[in-house]
Amino acid sequence: MSTPPTAGGLSTAAAWRRDLHAHPEVGFTELRTASRIAGHLTDLGWRVIAGPDAMPPDQRLGVPSDAELDAAFHRAEAGGGDPRFLPLVRGGHTAVVATLGTGSPHVALRADIDALPIAETDDPAHPPVAGGFASRHPGVMHACGHDGHVGIAIELAERLTADPPPGRVTLVFQPAEEGGRGGAAVAASGLLDDVELLVALHLGLDLPTGVVQPSNDALLANSKLRATFRGRAAHASLDPQDGRNALLGAASATLALQGMTRVAGHATRVSVGRISGGTSSNIVPDTAEMLLEVRADDGDVNADLEARARAMLAGAAQMHGLEVDVELIGAVTTATADPAAVAAVAEAARAVALDVVDAAAGSSVASDDGTALMRRVQAHGGLATYIGLGSTLPSGHHTRAFDLDEAALPLGVDLLERLVRTFTA
Amino acid sequence: MSTPPTAGGLSTAAAWRRDLHAHPEVGFTELRTASRIAGHLTDLGWRVIAGPDAMPPDQRLGVPSDAELDAAFHRAEAGGGDPRFLPLVRGGHTAVVATLGTGSPHVALRADIDALPIAETDDPAHPPVAGGFASRHPGVMHACGHDGHVGIAIELAERLTADPPPGRVTLVFQPAEEGGRGGAAVAASGLLDDVELLVALHLGLDLPTGVVQPSNDALLANSKLRATFRGRAAHASLDPQDGRNALLGAASATLALQGMTRVAGHATRVSVGRISGGTSSNIVPDTAEMLLEVRADDGDVNADLEARARAMLAGAAQMHGLEVDVELIGAVTTATADPAAVAAVAEAARAVALDVVDAAAGSSVASDDGTALMRRVQAHGGLATYIGLGSTLPSGHHTRAFDLDEAALPLGVDLLERLVRTFTA
Amino acid sequence: MSTPPTAGGLSTAAAWRRDLHAHPEVGFTELRTASRIAGHLTDLGWRVIAGPDAMPPDQRLGVPSDAELDAAFHRAEAGGGDPRFLPLVRGGHTAVVATLGTGSPHVALRADIDALPIAETDDPAHPPVAGGFASRHPGVMHACGHDGHVGIAIELAERLTADPPPGRVTLVFQPAEEGGRGGAAVAASGLLDDVELLVALHLGLDLPTGVVQPSNDALLANSKLRATFRGRAAHASLDPQDGRNALLGAASATLALQGMTRVAGHATRVSVGRISGGTSSNIVPDTAEMLLEVRADDGDVNADLEARARAMLAGAAQMHGLEVDVELIGAVTTATADPAAVAAVAEAARAVALDVVDAAAGSSVASDDGTALMRRVQAHGGLATYIGLGSTLPSGHHTRAFDLDEAALPLGVDLLERLVRTFTA
Amino acid sequence: MSTPPTAGGLSTAAAWRRDLHAHPEVGFTELRTASRIAGHLTDLGWRVIAGPDAMPPDQRLGVPSDAELDAAFHRAEAGGGDPRFLPLVRGGHTAVVATLGTGSPHVALRADIDALPIAETDDPAHPPVAGGFASRHPGVMHACGHDGHVGIAIELAERLTADPPPGRVTLVFQPAEEGGRGGAAVAASGLLDDVELLVALHLGLDLPTGVVQPSNDALLANSKLRATFRGRAAHASLDPQDGRNALLGAASATLALQGMTRVAGHATRVSVGRISGGTSSNIVPDTAEMLLEVRADDGDVNADLEARARAMLAGAAQMHGLEVDVELIGAVTTATADPAAVAAVAEAARAVALDVVDAAAGSSVASDDGTALMRRVQAHGGLATYIGLGSTLPSGHHTRAFDLDEAALPLGVDLLERLVRTFTA
Repeated sequence: MSTPPTAGGLSTAAAWRRDLHAHPEVGFTELRTASRIAGHLTDLGWRVIAGPDAMPPDQRLGVPSDAELDAAFHRAEAGGGDPRFLPLVRGGHTAVVATLGTGSPHVALRADIDALPIAETDDPAHPPVAGGFASRHPGVMHACGHDGHVGIAIELAERLTADPPPGRVTLVFQPAEEGGRGGAAVAASGLLDDVELLVALHLGLDLPTGVVQPSNDALLANSKLRATFRGRAAHASLDPQDGRNALLGAASATLALQGMTRVAGHATRVSVGRISGGTSSNIVPDTAEMLLEVRADDGDVNADLEARARAMLAGAAQMHGLEVDVELIGAVTTATADPAAVAAVAEAARAVALDVVDAAAGSSVASDDGTALMRRVQAHGGLATYIGLGSTLPSGHHTRAFDLDEAALPLGVDLLERLVRTFTA
Repeated sequence: MSTPPTAGGLSTAAAWRRDLHAHPEVGFTELRTASRIAGHLTDLGWRVIAGPDAMPPDQRLGVPSDAELDAAFHRAEAGGGDPRFLPLVRGGHTAVVATLGTGSPHVALRADIDALPIAETDDPAHPPVAGGFASRHPGVMHACGHDGHVGIAIELAERLTADPPPGRVTLVFQPAEEGGRGGAAVAASGLLDDVELLVALHLGLDLPTGVVQPSNDALLANSKLRATFRGRAAHASLDPQDGRNALLGAASATLALQGMTRVAGHATRVSVGRISGGTSSNIVPDTAEMLLEVRADDGDVNADLEARARAMLAGAAQMHGLEVDVELIGAVTTATADPAAVAAVAEAARAVALDVVDAAAGSSVASDDGTALMRRVQAHGGLATYIGLGSTLPSGHHTRAFDLDEAALPLGVDLLERLVRTFTA
Repeated sequence: MSTPPTAGGLSTAAAWRRDLHAHPEVGFTELRTASRIAGHLTDLGWRVIAGPDAMPPDQRLGVPSDAELDAAFHRAEAGGGDPRFLPLVRGGHTAVVATLGTGSPHVALRADIDALPIAETDDPAHPPVAGGFASRHPGVMHACGHDGHVGIAIELAERLTADPPPGRVTLVFQPAEEGGRGGAAVAASGLLDDVELLVALHLGLDLPTGVVQPSNDALLANSKLRATFRGRAAHASLDPQDGRNALLGAASATLALQGMTRVAGHATRVSVGRISGGTSSNIVPDTAEMLLEVRADDGDVNADLEARARAMLAGAAQMHGLEVDVELIGAVTTATADPAAVAAVAEAARAVALDVVDAAAGSSVASDDGTALMRRVQAHGGLATYIGLGSTLPSGHHTRAFDLDEAALPLGVDLLERLVRTFTA
Repeated sequence: MSTPPTAGGLSTAAAWRRDLHAHPEVGFTELRTASRIAGHLTDLGWRVIAGPDAMPPDQRLGVPSDAELDAAFHRAEAGGGDPRFLPLVRGGHTAVVATLGTGSPHVALRADIDALPIAETDDPAHPPVAGGFASRHPGVMHACGHDGHVGIAIELAERLTADPPPGRVTLVFQPAEEGGRGGAAVAASGLLDDVELLVALHLGLDLPTGVVQPSNDALLANSKLRATFRGRAAHASLDPQDGRNALLGAASATLALQGMTRVAGHATRVSVGRISGGTSSNIVPDTAEMLLEVRADDGDVNADLEARARAMLAGAAQMHGLEVDVELIGAVTTATADPAAVAAVAEAARAVALDVVDAAAGSSVASDDGTALMRRVQAHGGLATYIGLGSTLPSGHHTRAFDLDEAALPLGVDLLERLVRTFTA
């Protein structure tokens, strides 16, 4: 069975957070993470749905290769994954939906569980290093705070277990939020279709500890693409003219994409984040892969940017005599919070003595595919919002020195517990 | 001890060639290859100099990382490397210089020993596949014919051992010819400074089996560079302006390099063969690495191209707020054959009933850092030339389906034996 | 003397607007325009300061060549310029500052007077074509509405002349607003240093006729640059390597500039609007000129964009072995309206039955170097604002089919008259 | 009538050369030039065919606009054009074919007559400046030596008139050689179909005065293209997203074209010689024009380069949402000299005491659409060659300081006279 992680004087939230921080797993490889969550909530008496039933496999985007999934399985097996659930989540089926109680009202809370392909700093002053819970997985890091989201949810589950509210509470542990690859798939499970209030919470977002933002205006839609240019290999000196250098397609496309004309009056983003192709300088490379994304504060604008990106990739291929395949590997929509949900969160926040700021606070403009869950709940008549929970950060999200202020964790538990108890009262 | 590879009815040259073909090792990792060569020639009674004495370590270019060298060592240790010599060549000191006899005349023959980072085809009709000697090292392949060069040299050594000529014969087994990384270093050993005739032989080169080209006009000088752009990471949506995308430097430089204005009246080449940078689309990549090369049929022109390439890399960095480090990882000079050496080869060729073609035959225009050995010998008063030995090829050099015509191997042994015996007579 | 233009049943504002529309003059060549304005106001009894005293010559940016200025002079001389003032404004000294009354309160109104290098449509349905007042100067057009601004100011002057208010009223006729080349220079004259209320009015801005916007949030700072790449000419076939193609610098810079990483949370713009270089395909061009601009809703951000643009131009030059000269040919700051000024305008607007909208109305985000005048007045203790005056447009600003709704002209005169009389009361 | 130009102690060749040098006319605008040639040869008693009969109008490439042709006509009319022939050649019909004698043998000599769009240096030391015959047409210059070609042909005509050889001699004065726009059209006239020996002579070509090259290996095929990108205009700040910036197509295409992978074993060239688009920085430009060319020493390779250039232009348009029109404005083939023609020229050269060098001498590698005339003659059974006539140059062809060594002119006349008299003897 899955025992509570570490102990000392740490709260459950902090203890879980530190354990996950030390064992980060990127999207769809959260096998240790998901199996331990599922095991612990099962032990607490919650009804747990994990694996394909919680996330239709063919709705996932950007699933890693079988080799990567297998490697992750073996690592989780050897590194503390819960053997009761590992077989179920193996193969990238790492969603866990856990429910306490029955009937109505039905409140659901989303916690995302994946880490990022970032190498954590080894600076001795970095608290995870100093505290002995830095990432043990080279090149992978909880650099966005999802470890804290899980910690809050687990401690909340323990409190609710101890004193169950009326109605129903569901905790949604969603994989692969980074890249917008898991949210829509979990939504497609239908498990949230009778939820009456869904809350997705995110730590940080440029808000200081002690502050709550009951809804967030700054969520962008996005589309993430993998483009693979295919040309023809040749010896770069003997027969260069027989080659078609796939990297030329990537280079031309990169400059064009980066220069995509922006849309006045809208927040937009374009980013080429990875290029990889070729082996040595004397071989004309026949393949080059790019990872790129567009974002916008409006779904139609985002769709226009994506269409233009695809035209740029096609044009770059044509310029250099190449083929190009473009695969959508992540997609996030926008969502709008319901005023009633916002009001409920604000009221709960004030009740637990947190400062409330409005939806425009914080300068962070990012994406979260929790919006897919929000839209699903709203489409079935429920309310939804996206909460920013302040946590003073020494270094920004997605950086090597990112760290949570753990003082924010109990505030998050308090807030959500109050929200649940008020809404289900 | 190092026993002769396989047997059957194969000649020594073919047997060695097939054994090496099955165990290809890229430049400076030719540990199994070099140790077995050194062991076998020692067993034949030749004086063998291997390791750092045969190649001053600090003269090498583009040496792999310690991790790669260590991995190669463990593979060679487990896979048939000669334990008497493995410790000596460990760490990328894979040159072997073996001498029979003393005094003068002194003839030297160069055989290069490295393979390429190319994945061999698995087409069942490909003779190495059909014959069971396809590469056992994924992603590495003898796709240029160096395995045949070693086979010819070993069989020649056996014949000369059996009936030693007067004077002195030296076989130079040179690592890391691909990329122009080992030749100048072996030359710097000084071991060839009293050589009176040096011959470097290459199979193929668009010449059919049965043909010999006693010198080759088409060798290009080249410079190979690794450029590393360094920028600043950032979240691509939250704080894009804090990032400096290293891939933009690589993309701008690639297009500029590819478009370097060519020099009328000279054969020139420019190639960007590899770009790698970044992890995911939502992280502004802080590092991007490029591998590139320039070539020209004239050393000064090559130097000008290299200077312009460096200016382009610097300019690309400046454009995008990046730093760039540029490292020379390979360099090849041109060389001119001595007419007396050419005549001696032609005479030997005719004596063994091979067809002789002139220096302009074959359309291949490539580089070979055997030119560094040629220039060293010539600088000390010796003669030198570069021989093309015909071998009808089903697929060009540096392609996945490259294969030698093994019928060319005994012709090469005959040619070199005749040349040695005539020159030392 | 300068007689009132045309007549018919047209108001003074419309008559002047049509006359100027037919005789458009680009920045610093507004010789006919400025001389006629100066003449008419002189005839009305206003104190007129024109020429260098109204605009220190060395403060101007982007002044046309002497040849262009001379051509403009001859055209104005032959085409209705006022001979009393033409000598004074000749050479690009086309500012006119006219004052009625003395003492305090001192109200100033800015009208910009220049046209654009755009060819007006010849569509017979285009009102200026149908009405016979389309541009008579090929390739030049009042496509932004400055003709209307002058018309409003002139009719206002006539009304004030007929019934002078207490205190002082100054009309500032500013040249070269397009491109941000004249505003700061007029401010530097010091003629506005004791102004207590400055209003700059612009027609259109996506606001319908009948609407007034008493201040405008959407003015961007900008910097306009002319970059001239210089390389070396050569015959493109005989000696291409002797050339340094200036167009390559322009092409690389264009893609880099267009791709300048944007700043989250700020409205920004980057535009390359012109490239010109070379003569024929067989001559390597030694010169290429670019016109480009950056804009931002914050002066510091704009300065950062400009700095990055300069780095890109320098890097592009270095990449291709070129020199580059970069000249600032236009610059606009941001400015913030004073609430008391905004309130005064809103009150005047309501008093003349116009609808008042807030500072965020209209989607237009552009620049106006009237901000330099605003900042100058504010720095000396005065109030200032920038008014949008609705005019329903059939085609956007800076397009070939742009046309004003002339019904907006008397509304503008009424508004400004009321504002002046109220403020000076 | 057309009188001999100037006088002094100058030879006819030098006098004509200087007159034409002072009055240069670019391709198809050689109205003064062609009319004076036609007039003078008519006066000498030759049969002159000029205008459309000498060059089928629809076979011409890259004909200037009607406005340019008209302007050229008026300049020629006012500046010494021969009124007897100006009406005939007006409109770009500037070929002149003049014949003396009848029957066979039939020898033809080609002289090209057009100048270049280059501004001549005003350096006082430049001989045309010092001698008072520098270009009087700003921006146009005889910078390739065609003025000398005409001078030689005219003096040859005078000598042959004075002492007519047996058989027939035809002088072909071909327009628009620069850019490869007139040669194929003159060939299509059929007027040379019974020529038995055609010689095209070019001065300079890196050969010193006193040297003759009876054939030239270094003529390249070429294709010259005008690409026009069309996008959509917009205000660069108000509505950038509504624009499609045509300059982005030109910039991307320029970098791609410049980087076209070259063909090992062939001399090739790619050049972008002109880009023009846009007006000011704040208007997204809707049109951009490029002039470019490819060349190769083999017609098929040239065709491949042209095809790839067209793909690059199309791809660049697609990348940026543009349309692109590509027009062939010049085309030149390769041609091979007949050994018998080469031998005849060499013999004549030696007979007049000139040094003879072989076809590879000189490093110049360029194009000349005299090859179309050569191919036409050869296709009908005649012989042809292309002669290089040495002329020591202070500055290369197509440079602002280009100047002929006039000492070469009488050598050319002597050579051609000897060739004609020998061949027709």
